[in-house]
Amino acid sequence: MATTASICTIGDEILIGQIVDTNSSKISQELNRLGIQVRYMFSIGDNRSEIISQLGRCLEETDIVIVTGGLGPTKDDITKDALKTLFGAEGYKESAEQMEIIVKILTARGIELMDINRAQAQVPNNCTVIPNRLGTAPCLSFHTEVRSDQFYADKEGHHKVSLYSLPGVPFEAIGLLPDIMEDIKKHFDLEEITHHTIETFGIPESTLAKMIEKWEDNLPSNIHLAYLPNPTIGVRLRLTQYGGKADFAKQIAELKDIIGDAIYGEGDDNLQKVIGDMLRQSGKTLSVAESCTGGRLSELITSVAGCSDYYKGSVTSYSNKVKINVLGVPAKIIDSCGAVSKECVIAMAEGVLKVLDTDFSVATSGVAGPGGGSAEKPVGMAHLAVAYRNPATGEISTTATVVKFASNRAVNIERFASNALNLLRLEIVKQLK
Amino acid sequence: MATTASICTIGDEILIGQIVDTNSSKISQELNRLGIQVRYMFSIGDNRSEIISQLGRCLEETDIVIVTGGLGPTKDDITKDALKTLFGAEGYKESAEQMEIIVKILTARGIELMDINRAQAQVPNNCTVIPNRLGTAPCLSFHTEVRSDQFYADKEGHHKVSLYSLPGVPFEAIGLLPDIMEDIKKHFDLEEITHHTIETFGIPESTLAKMIEKWEDNLPSNIHLAYLPNPTIGVRLRLTQYGGKADFAKQIAELKDIIGDAIYGEGDDNLQKVIGDMLRQSGKTLSVAESCTGGRLSELITSVAGCSDYYKGSVTSYSNKVKINVLGVPAKIIDSCGAVSKECVIAMAEGVLKVLDTDFSVATSGVAGPGGGSAEKPVGMAHLAVAYRNPATGEISTTATVVKFASNRAVNIERFASNALNLLRLEIVKQLK
Repeated sequence: MATTASICTIGDEILIGQIVDTNSSKISQELNRLGIQVRYMFSIGDNRSEIISQLGRCLEETDIVIVTGGLGPTKDDITKDALKTLFGAEGYKESAEQMEIIVKILTARGIELMDINRAQAQVPNNCTVIPNRLGTAPCLSFHTEVRSDQFYADKEGHHKVSLYSLPGVPFEAIGLLPDIMEDIKKHFDLEEITHHTIETFGIPESTLAKMIEKWEDNLPSNIHLAYLPNPTIGVRLRLTQYGGKADFAKQIAELKDIIGDAIYGEGDDNLQKVIGDMLRQSGKTLSVAESCTGGRLSELITSVAGCSDYYKGSVTSYSNKVKINVLGVPAKIIDSCGAVSKECVIAMAEGVLKVLDTDFSVATSGVAGPGGGSAEKPVGMAHLAVAYRNPATGEISTTATVVKFASNRAVNIERFASNALNLLRLEIVKQLK
Repeated sequence: MATTASICTIGDEILIGQIVDTNSSKISQELNRLGIQVRYMFSIGDNRSEIISQLGRCLEETDIVIVTGGLGPTKDDITKDALKTLFGAEGYKESAEQMEIIVKILTARGIELMDINRAQAQVPNNCTVIPNRLGTAPCLSFHTEVRSDQFYADKEGHHKVSLYSLPGVPFEAIGLLPDIMEDIKKHFDLEEITHHTIETFGIPESTLAKMIEKWEDNLPSNIHLAYLPNPTIGVRLRLTQYGGKADFAKQIAELKDIIGDAIYGEGDDNLQKVIGDMLRQSGKTLSVAESCTGGRLSELITSVAGCSDYYKGSVTSYSNKVKINVLGVPAKIIDSCGAVSKECVIAMAEGVLKVLDTDFSVATSGVAGPGGGSAEKPVGMAHLAVAYRNPATGEISTTATVVKFASNRAVNIERFASNALNLLRLEIVKQLK
């Protein structure tokens, strides 16, 4: 029987709907990667008896319990005290390692160390601490055995359980996951599972499924395929091999023959990283001109560490005056075709390429919504362009496309930006061939 | 004792982390608005015995149970059959009202009515149907009495319960909520609850807790306080009043006396929205010059719909050449002080204000990391500046500050951007006084 897990989120703010829990989803992804079956996830409030009774049930029903939230320094955070009771700790001890981190974090930020901060390093004396380098509250882990005699328990008799309690702040919780997964591997005898992900962009899930139907039917029985569609980063195909040493080389080579250029990466690649690698290797530079994406395209490119090797910068020309004065878009183009037009986006791409003096540039101009749409240029429509200057001739060649999505502003901005990145990727591949 | 509820999401895709559950958050907002206390939310897989045992527990422990998911027409959706068993229905009946909607929807889409569609109108014969006008699966409601004798139950003896089962598709589930809330009001005698949130920026949670300790101790016993800290948007303080007509005016006025300008909003405000409102009301315009934040600052500002009323655009000057050529930063400043300096960020702010011709501008220059740091200018350090042009004199006044955070690139970018927004907010408040 597979090792099972439960994920518990503690905090009133989730129960009143003020915050959407995104931690549980990321935690379950990591557990699934290790072949651990997540049996349920749940959210409860900052309520001592509720925490104790619900976590007690999790310990009876599942092998691993991951808890996030309720570890802050203020009075309403009571997870630590509830865990002390649940695991029958006799008192608290100080984690010297976490104390050192607390002092370092507060000193770096010029904040005076107070008792309330010092208390963050106090942990139940029968837990093991996994230090949190990104915040003041450490991860507490408890390893014990419990007896399962509830009618709903799958496991009879005694079973080994581990509980991990993490802070609720997402980047701290996610930052702790690698250490926690390593700890889980030490405590449980897990079946070997290997995953490999292939990233595609521009082909809808159903079309992709039809394209690779035969290939999928011919996969060995110990290799499974999962579709992970995401409207802004494309469809990822995850291959999972159960048991044995994994070698997906043959399958991937076949896939590349079928899907071609729509495959942009493998493993943890994303469009901006793949683009950055190609630019760095070829010594080419990049600039950006944005309108409807408002800065998101530049932000995606600069999310890659070390991007200053190839990225020179961007102009967000939200107003037409900036398009004309800074990017040199001819006023007559805006007058005759409008700012949301193929002509304008091409002029923006060529303008920023010249002003920022780069080899490649990418530009966006569209209607993110909710307002500003018309019958001819509806909300969700954007023109995208990529310009390239040939180093030998100095000639600039520019390619453009148009995309149409729906009415949600935030989603439109994401989709415009990712489609612009993909157009840039395809153009780099073509020009550097 | 308050009326309690539980929210259950059914579907394997949530347990493997492929989908983040956003329905539960919206459902709990609506329940809280009615003064119903959501005791817990949870997600389970498409597993018959798990559905029956977990929902059975919910019926024992809470008064209202809201279930989403597992009502689709395919074989893996088994919620309806599990509910038939749980509530002991003797068979199925057809909902004539939902059948009419199914025919209408399929006809509009030009799809032929098949048995699989017809089955969607079949419901357990002891349930009441709330028709779903946005999709084919109706909402099933069950009203009954259960006996609570589990050790974890708060309620003794018999209690009235209602269970509502909704389709999982978000827009269908959310579309059904008004009808469900009306139905709940008919079945339960509800106490009143009111929430009010106050947004603060720039004071750490522990310091804030100390500042308002006395105020917190003096809150009336029916008003509760919760801290909702978030490193990038600041600490939000949520006041909750149980029963009676809520009036937080006195408490909020006192808080403003204690905390002052660190309070930037109430309710659902965020920094970029508050800034946008002030700019629009005063007819002032804004531009942005970014380096280390790479586009994030501009993206935050343009996340507010209608920002083109006051936002002109930005220059992301990632390379020094762009700082000099586009923003007009004197080369000698970069040579003598470096790009990450008070002098440079002031020149960037003043430069973009002139080039984009706006009343206000905000600029960032720092080291996001992980590389590029030095002893003098470590990773996590950024200079921020805000410039303002006095419309009467034409004089430009510029204020600057420096912030220091840690080593995580993505988090640093977020914090630099939100601190720049806060500096901008404070300067707008000061200049427009």
